[in-house]
Amino acid sequence: MEKSRVLIIGGTGHIGKHIVAASVRLGHPTSILIREFAPSDPVKVQLLNSWGTSGASLLKGDLFDHKSLVKAIKCADVVISAVGPRQVAEQTRIIAAIKEAGNVKRFVPSEFGSDVDRLHTVDPAASLYAVKAKLRRLIEAEGIPHTFVSCNSFAETYLPSIGDVTAIGAGPPASKITVLGDGDAKAVFVVEDDIATYTMRAVDDARTLNKILYMRPPANVVSHNELISMWEKKAGRTLQKVHVPEEEILKWIKGADCSHEAAFPLNILLSLALSIFVRGDQANFDIDPAVGVEATQLYPDVIYTTVDEYLGHLP
Amino acid sequence: MEKSRVLIIGGTGHIGKHIVAASVRLGHPTSILIREFAPSDPVKVQLLNSWGTSGASLLKGDLFDHKSLVKAIKCADVVISAVGPRQVAEQTRIIAAIKEAGNVKRFVPSEFGSDVDRLHTVDPAASLYAVKAKLRRLIEAEGIPHTFVSCNSFAETYLPSIGDVTAIGAGPPASKITVLGDGDAKAVFVVEDDIATYTMRAVDDARTLNKILYMRPPANVVSHNELISMWEKKAGRTLQKVHVPEEEILKWIKGADCSHEAAFPLNILLSLALSIFVRGDQANFDIDPAVGVEATQLYPDVIYTTVDEYLGHLP
Repeated sequence: MEKSRVLIIGGTGHIGKHIVAASVRLGHPTSILIREFAPSDPVKVQLLNSWGTSGASLLKGDLFDHKSLVKAIKCADVVISAVGPRQVAEQTRIIAAIKEAGNVKRFVPSEFGSDVDRLHTVDPAASLYAVKAKLRRLIEAEGIPHTFVSCNSFAETYLPSIGDVTAIGAGPPASKITVLGDGDAKAVFVVEDDIATYTMRAVDDARTLNKILYMRPPANVVSHNELISMWEKKAGRTLQKVHVPEEEILKWIKGADCSHEAAFPLNILLSLALSIFVRGDQANFDIDPAVGVEATQLYPDVIYTTVDEYLGHLP
Repeated sequence: MEKSRVLIIGGTGHIGKHIVAASVRLGHPTSILIREFAPSDPVKVQLLNSWGTSGASLLKGDLFDHKSLVKAIKCADVVISAVGPRQVAEQTRIIAAIKEAGNVKRFVPSEFGSDVDRLHTVDPAASLYAVKAKLRRLIEAEGIPHTFVSCNSFAETYLPSIGDVTAIGAGPPASKITVLGDGDAKAVFVVEDDIATYTMRAVDDARTLNKILYMRPPANVVSHNELISMWEKKAGRTLQKVHVPEEEILKWIKGADCSHEAAFPLNILLSLALSIFVRGDQANFDIDPAVGVEATQLYPDVIYTTVDEYLGHLP
C-alpha cells in the first residue's frame, strides 16, 4: 500500500518534532506547515534545514491564514496537528479548512496527553482539556475521519526529575523529592519517539479510524512510588519523600490567581499533575473497545522504551 | 539612584532570555510577561523556575490581553519588548497600553538588529523591517520616551557557522563556505550577553533618551572574508570559498514565492544576509549624533567579547 501523504501542523513543538521524524522515517511524503520564524534562533534554523535535507517539504503557512491552510491540506491525505496549548482552541480553523478541502482521510488533532474525556482536575488544566474535549465533539459532529491520540505522560517531561513536577528540567533531586498525594496512583509514561511511532503507525490503519488510540505500554504503567524505587535502585541512593496532600495542592494552585503569586506557572503543571499523580486518570479505567484501542496491542512489533531503560540512561 | 523597575515582554526568546538575565544581574526589579505555555517543554519550565528563584516576577499575560498588559506596565518604569518576528507588528498593542498606563519612562521596542531606517534589502526581510520602521514613527508621534536598539548581528546566530548563512546551526563548515557577494562588506557581530548588558545600561541613561543605541564594538566590525581568515588561523585549516553573486542571491530568494520551493525558510535568512554581508548596511554609515549614540563609547567599562575571542571558543 502506498504511504499516505502527511501534513504536520505544529511540527517544531515538543512532540511535533518527533512526529515529523517518525513520518519521514516511516516513508510518508511529509509536509510541515511553518510560520514566519525568527532566523536568529540557530537551533530552529538547523532543525528546518535538516528537515529539508531529509526530504520533507516546508510549507509556509499559518493557522490564521485560511488560504495557506486549505492549500497545504489539499496536498495531504492525513493531517496531524501538534500545536501547543495556546493554539489548541484555534484548531477549529483546521477543521474548517479540512471541510473546505474535502480530501482528508484522517485528522489527528493535538491532544497528546491524558484522555480528555476522562480527566478530573481543576483549572488551569481543566479548561485546556475542556477545549480539547469540545474539539472532539466538533470533529465527530462534522463527520471528519479521525484518530484521537491519548499518549498519556511525556517521558522526557516527567522522568528526568523522577516525577517531581516542582523540579521539571532540573534533573534528579539531590535528596528530597516532592510526591503529590500518597504516590500510589498509577500513571503512564511514554517516550516521545515511541509516541510518534505509534501515531504514525495508526494514521493508515483502519482499526484506529474514529477511535481513541491509547498508549499504555505494560511496563510503563507505574505509580510515583514505584518510579522513585526504580530510580533509587539504579542510583544507589534513596530520596526523602515530601508528600503534599490534595488539599495543599489545591491551595497551591489557587494561590496563582493573583498574578504576582509564585505558583504561576507551576499551577499549570500542578493542575495536570493532580490528575496524573493523585487521581490516577491515566490508568484508572478499562479501555472501552467501542471507543478505543491500545497501541502496544495493535503494534506489538514496535519495541518501546521502558521506564526502567529510560531511568538507566539518566545522567 | 534607585534602579528602575523593568518589564520584559518576549523574555523567553533568543535575545529576551539574555535581557532578563542582565536586568536581574544589574539589580533591576524585573518582571516578565509570560503567556500560557506548554508544560511539556522541560527546558522552558526550567528557565521559568530559575527566573522565579532569581527573584524575577513572572506575570501571566499576553499581548492580546489589553488588561493584563496595562496592569503589568503600570508596575514598571521601563518596558522592553523582545518579541519575535510574528509579534513585531502587534507591538502597537504595547504602545496603546503604555499610553493608557501613562507611567512609562522608557520603552525599548523589539528591534535588536540592523538600523531599520538604513536597511536596503528585499522581501521577506524588507517587509519585516518596514514594520519596525513604522513602529518607530508611531512611538515618536505618540511622544513615548524610547530607545531604539540597533545591536546589529547576533554572534550566536552567525559566528558558529563562520558567517555561512546556509549552514546556521551546523557549526563550522568542513571544507567549503558560502560567501555572499565578494565578502568585503563590513558587518558587526555582538555577543548576545553584551547586547543585553548594553541595553540594560542604557535604559536609565539620559544620553540614550529618544535616541538610537548603536552597538559597534570596534574589534567586531569585520567583513566576511576577515571573519573566515580569523577562524582559519585558529582552526589551522583553510576553507574553499564559494562566492554567490547578488543576482544569484536574489533569484534564490525569489524562488521561495512558490511555497514548495526549497529556499523557504532560507529566503528569510538570505534577504537579511543580503543587507548585512553584501550591502554592508550595518557599518556603511557614520552615526549621526543628532539621532544616535554608540554603546561601547558610552560604556567603556563594559568588557565586551570580541569576535576573535568568540571564534577561539568554538568547538
